[in-house]
Amino acid sequence: MSDSPFPPLPGHPESDVHSTPAMLRPRFGTALSGFLTTQAERLAEVGGELEPVASALRDFVLDGGKRLRPLFCYWGWRATGAADETRLVTAAAALELLQACALIHDDLMDGSNTRRGVPSFHRRFERLHRQEGWAGAAETFGAAAAILAGDLCLSWSDEMFTGCGLDAAALRRARPVFDMMRTEVLAGQYLDVLEQATAGESVERARRVIRYKTAKYTVERPLQLGAALAAPDDGLLADLSGYGLPLGEAFQLRDDLLGVFGDPGETGKPSGDDLREGKRTVLAALTMSKADEEQARVFRAHLGDPELDQGGVERLREVMLETGAVGEVERLIRLRTEEALEALESERVDPVARRALAELAVAVTDRRL
Amino acid sequence: MSDSPFPPLPGHPESDVHSTPAMLRPRFGTALSGFLTTQAERLAEVGGELEPVASALRDFVLDGGKRLRPLFCYWGWRATGAADETRLVTAAAALELLQACALIHDDLMDGSNTRRGVPSFHRRFERLHRQEGWAGAAETFGAAAAILAGDLCLSWSDEMFTGCGLDAAALRRARPVFDMMRTEVLAGQYLDVLEQATAGESVERARRVIRYKTAKYTVERPLQLGAALAAPDDGLLADLSGYGLPLGEAFQLRDDLLGVFGDPGETGKPSGDDLREGKRTVLAALTMSKADEEQARVFRAHLGDPELDQGGVERLREVMLETGAVGEVERLIRLRTEEALEALESERVDPVARRALAELAVAVTDRRL
Repeated sequence: MSDSPFPPLPGHPESDVHSTPAMLRPRFGTALSGFLTTQAERLAEVGGELEPVASALRDFVLDGGKRLRPLFCYWGWRATGAADETRLVTAAAALELLQACALIHDDLMDGSNTRRGVPSFHRRFERLHRQEGWAGAAETFGAAAAILAGDLCLSWSDEMFTGCGLDAAALRRARPVFDMMRTEVLAGQYLDVLEQATAGESVERARRVIRYKTAKYTVERPLQLGAALAAPDDGLLADLSGYGLPLGEAFQLRDDLLGVFGDPGETGKPSGDDLREGKRTVLAALTMSKADEEQARVFRAHLGDPELDQGGVERLREVMLETGAVGEVERLIRLRTEEALEALESERVDPVARRALAELAVAVTDRRL
Repeated sequence: MSDSPFPPLPGHPESDVHSTPAMLRPRFGTALSGFLTTQAERLAEVGGELEPVASALRDFVLDGGKRLRPLFCYWGWRATGAADETRLVTAAAALELLQACALIHDDLMDGSNTRRGVPSFHRRFERLHRQEGWAGAAETFGAAAAILAGDLCLSWSDEMFTGCGLDAAALRRARPVFDMMRTEVLAGQYLDVLEQATAGESVERARRVIRYKTAKYTVERPLQLGAALAAPDDGLLADLSGYGLPLGEAFQLRDDLLGVFGDPGETGKPSGDDLREGKRTVLAALTMSKADEEQARVFRAHLGDPELDQGGVERLREVMLETGAVGEVERLIRLRTEEALEALESERVDPVARRALAELAVAVTDRRL
């Protein structure tokens, strides 16, 4: 770890209050805000009509979001023993633009109406179209705006990352991780769409979707990205993988439970949306694998019904509970979290980072974060 | 020009047969083919179900296309006096992946059925969905596949460009051009969508869309990108702009004429598609600005009518001809092409590149290319 080109500053505290999630999030926000201001100026130079796009993206990227990917990227860097570093905060924050693309395009593909309790991006532009009384279909306009805005975010993510200010050698080390992460998450999303189209009921396939769409994308790759920027040894990258993959799986399993049983006030999504969309989660696959004939009939009849009412939601919840699938998912969350925490015990992981990552593991699987 | 870190090799011929468009295109194709093979292997590692995505992207990127952006990028490099270079061919070819994203997403936004005479990307995946008898709406599946595949291309474009093998200093010089180009083309596309929604009739606004969506994106920025990779002086960048912007405008004006009067066998698009889509071209805006009351009435009634039949197409064509708008567009194409050729006369432009760029100018505005 002492090989890092970014060693701790002399006198740098072993643990510092500036790196709690609550302290880091505003720093990511500041980096994003500055970057988006520059981009808004560029868009304004092209034409004043782009102002609604710039504002909507600003709202989308700066309002809320748990900043999980930047947090893991930050702690991947610190795990090497490298000191807190503003340029790394910028590189980490760039992951939020990739995430913005994923969410904007995902909501469009799913036809979701809301995100974090406000209208989804395409719905916002449908509304603009209607307010202005423009020609053509509002849906078509909203979809086009969301496709282009997502593309902007994807392109900006790479621009912000590459322009973070870290040197060429650091960027060259991190590039393969950055590239792999993007291909993996998009491939995982395609598999997710395909599972839904084929009405898949396999636990194994649902787990594979989680692996690429969440575990690698949200935890493992961001950690490795931060570490790669700071010149880690291969052993540390493996340790981070040993922590990241099971933790990412546990995180998604918790998310799936919240999608069915969570409080809409906290999740920002209407209750039962995941069920109406017919998401092929591990929870759903486990339910089917444990269901008797009657339970399976009820489950198949209701899962993915766009007209599902509150009664239908309740019946699906009952089947998930009665089959023991919910209990099994809770058990898996505990197991995977423990596995992640064990991998952290490696002496290659810097102690300050170890403590922070242990706290993050509990927070994202308890979902107090 | 002798400052270039990539000077002509000793004995390098002043003009060589390896750099005609017909010789360069297969070289871009080879670079793209190799890159796509690597990506297909990565996708296969995620899951065998991604094979249709890999194949469809391979077909889309390798079948046809005039490779204009790579050609201009190549000649931007050569304009500095730098010699032919395989790593530059790779960097230039990466622009085709950006273009693939633009076309796949554009066809989806426009609801186009065909591209280069074959089904558009989203239609291909709708068909797959129907053939396999999958659940849900085929249109939704096709749209999701096209969104994700376009995102993959956008992300791969940057990966291929950054991984072209040229050194960090060259990449750092070229980055601002690369970033600006992406933001500009996406912003230009939004303005294009907006012009359609507002049924714009302003020649000035239609010209601005052309400027960002085509002139900068297709000609000016690719030229500057190639030049920036080879360390040009600012004067040369201005010369390339002086050639690229008017030529790009002339190219788009020719494209607009072909969209209305072209042979579907050559354009690969059904006759009248641009008119049914209601594209707000300079040609359309000029027609309106020159139309009498009756001509304006006919034009407004038919432009953008999705049910427009061959008779309606003929009437729109007549109005465009009778108002003199077609003649005016032909005149503008001539003027802009001459302007471009004049800018080439700068002594800062390497003579071999000057000759090649002059030929390209004629080819893309005559549309023999």
